[in-house]
Amino acid sequence: MSALENAKALIACESVTPARGPVFDAMEAMLSPLGFAVHRFTRGEGAEGSEEEPVENLLAVREGPAGSKHFAFAGHLDVVPPGEGWSTDAFGPEVKGELLYGRGAVDMKGSIACMAAAVADVPQDAGTLSFLITGDEEGPALHGTRALIDAMRQRGVQPDLCLVGEPTSVNRLGDMMKIGRRGSVNIWLEVDGTQGHVAYPHLADNPMPKMVAILAELDALVLDEGTDWFQASNLEITEFDVANRAHNVIPGKATARISIRFNDLHTGTSLAERVTAIAEKHGGTARPVISGESFLTPPGAFSDMVAAAVEAETGVTPEASTSGGTSDARFLKDVCPVIEFGLVNATMHKTDEAVAVADLDTLTRIYRRIALAAIGHEG
Amino acid sequence: MSALENAKALIACESVTPARGPVFDAMEAMLSPLGFAVHRFTRGEGAEGSEEEPVENLLAVREGPAGSKHFAFAGHLDVVPPGEGWSTDAFGPEVKGELLYGRGAVDMKGSIACMAAAVADVPQDAGTLSFLITGDEEGPALHGTRALIDAMRQRGVQPDLCLVGEPTSVNRLGDMMKIGRRGSVNIWLEVDGTQGHVAYPHLADNPMPKMVAILAELDALVLDEGTDWFQASNLEITEFDVANRAHNVIPGKATARISIRFNDLHTGTSLAERVTAIAEKHGGTARPVISGESFLTPPGAFSDMVAAAVEAETGVTPEASTSGGTSDARFLKDVCPVIEFGLVNATMHKTDEAVAVADLDTLTRIYRRIALAAIGHEG
Repeated sequence: MSALENAKALIACESVTPARGPVFDAMEAMLSPLGFAVHRFTRGEGAEGSEEEPVENLLAVREGPAGSKHFAFAGHLDVVPPGEGWSTDAFGPEVKGELLYGRGAVDMKGSIACMAAAVADVPQDAGTLSFLITGDEEGPALHGTRALIDAMRQRGVQPDLCLVGEPTSVNRLGDMMKIGRRGSVNIWLEVDGTQGHVAYPHLADNPMPKMVAILAELDALVLDEGTDWFQASNLEITEFDVANRAHNVIPGKATARISIRFNDLHTGTSLAERVTAIAEKHGGTARPVISGESFLTPPGAFSDMVAAAVEAETGVTPEASTSGGTSDARFLKDVCPVIEFGLVNATMHKTDEAVAVADLDTLTRIYRRIALAAIGHEG
Repeated sequence: MSALENAKALIACESVTPARGPVFDAMEAMLSPLGFAVHRFTRGEGAEGSEEEPVENLLAVREGPAGSKHFAFAGHLDVVPPGEGWSTDAFGPEVKGELLYGRGAVDMKGSIACMAAAVADVPQDAGTLSFLITGDEEGPALHGTRALIDAMRQRGVQPDLCLVGEPTSVNRLGDMMKIGRRGSVNIWLEVDGTQGHVAYPHLADNPMPKMVAILAELDALVLDEGTDWFQASNLEITEFDVANRAHNVIPGKATARISIRFNDLHTGTSLAERVTAIAEKHGGTARPVISGESFLTPPGAFSDMVAAAVEAETGVTPEASTSGGTSDARFLKDVCPVIEFGLVNATMHKTDEAVAVADLDTLTRIYRRIALAAIGHEG
């Protein structure tokens, strides 16, 4: 099966996050004939639409000789909702001109299709290969890659290196890989006061000046100046929600929220403690929710390996970036070194998401080179 | 007619703000037999419930001899809505024990009833008396006392002194009069920015830090330390309305509101200009709405006159206060010196609003003493 055929088969399975069933059947049908032992399992017991809605995951392993190196491809088969206004059927893959259209074409059924095509002619005795495929990367991700990692630990599946197929390329295939991602923490702030009439402020306790003082101090923080590989950590005030139509009323409570994207000089916990101290100093409280810690796979052998494969197939040297949002690499970094590399992301999450058919072939060759290099196979 | 009978007649006319018709008929029926020339007029042409809903006003004058002094009683016949839970009919006046119950009993149909009773036995040749009675003091007050003042100017009605019958007493009749009121201005603040994703702050322009800076600077202002007669002017942050459920979104606009209660060291305009300069310095804008300027009738002959009348009838020396919210004195101060004195305000705007029947008689005697002293009549 070519990457294009694989991609069509995956896109044809409607799999708005969280994904289960048919799209995993299609994936299993690609991997089983190649000698992979496929383990599928579902986690989550909530109602449809809840954060606990069941999620399917797939862990496929093809063991090489004892002691051989182990390389893992990781990715997700769930997609964001198609939205309105497509010129094709979002779940009816269609090639028009040089492009294959369909939800997930680049994020990231296209990449997974290339992974499956890439391993087809890697000999089994070259080393151990695995696929770590989740049905929830676009949603709450409570029972996605985290559950996969639990399953890997239970089964003793321990890759040496892992590549996540997120669409990291920006203007052309190969121009960017991600060697790290910033961490993310949202912190809810609250100051309690006593409601009252503005004409009698001595009978009230206005929480607003305290919240303003907290936010002014937080906004003045310089978390760092950036590192060799990361831009500076950044704090944004994202909410201050005290709607109060009564002009003469001092509000009784002030709530606000900040969002911090941070590099590897911090942890979510260290930042939460710092913000909490500032909030408490001014009589407020802080409730942090850490979305993900930062990760960094420092430039070295693995990134050189990915860059060499990209250069060999495209002539482009990929920039080693740590920009953008979070990905499942935030979890996988606890298993082994991880790098993200995939298709051009211009149309991801958009109407008429599409991938260049030629890029599917090129990416397949790049992935094959990376897999072979990672397991130490002399090509 | 006694003050109690007058009060019952007024309370029996349902007159939730803005008031028109029957309650003014009742008022006219009290004043006409006493020799007052009653001029009633309606202003406002909007729909019911709008700020422009028609308001009735009453200007009644009884001319004394040419060149005699002119004293005015001022007040309002509109009331706030009764709300739920009354133990009597809010618009069915009822004496139970020592109290007369009904909406407006103290704020301020009771006071107006006393004014009408007080002038009944003041001889016409003692001087000029007038009543400045509006149907909108509890509402937007666009067509209330302001319209009355216009009508007075057109008719050449110019009192020398004016007493507003607001319920200024706190614990017992006579313990407080108002010789001034603070002014009030609400200022809406706005900062425009550019919405974006928290992971890409360079593509956004977060308005929140600018608004926080504006509010921090405003909160740090010390407007003044108070004066001999006024407490310090006070600024409260009353709203910061940026609800934003999307944790990862930098909001595109920040809006907030402050409320300033100010003494006679400031004007609404001077404060608005100061706040606007601070807002603009940080890239924001300010939209002020001045509810009322401050007023002060400095302690002197008029306040001594009121105090003497109160002391003679109650044995209590009234405190000369400038505390509390605004009243129609904010407009009348442009006509002549004005002082507010009236019933005990404990139940005003509340369920089971009630006045002590004895207080109605005492207040009538106090008002009669004030009127006689104001027109220079030797009692």
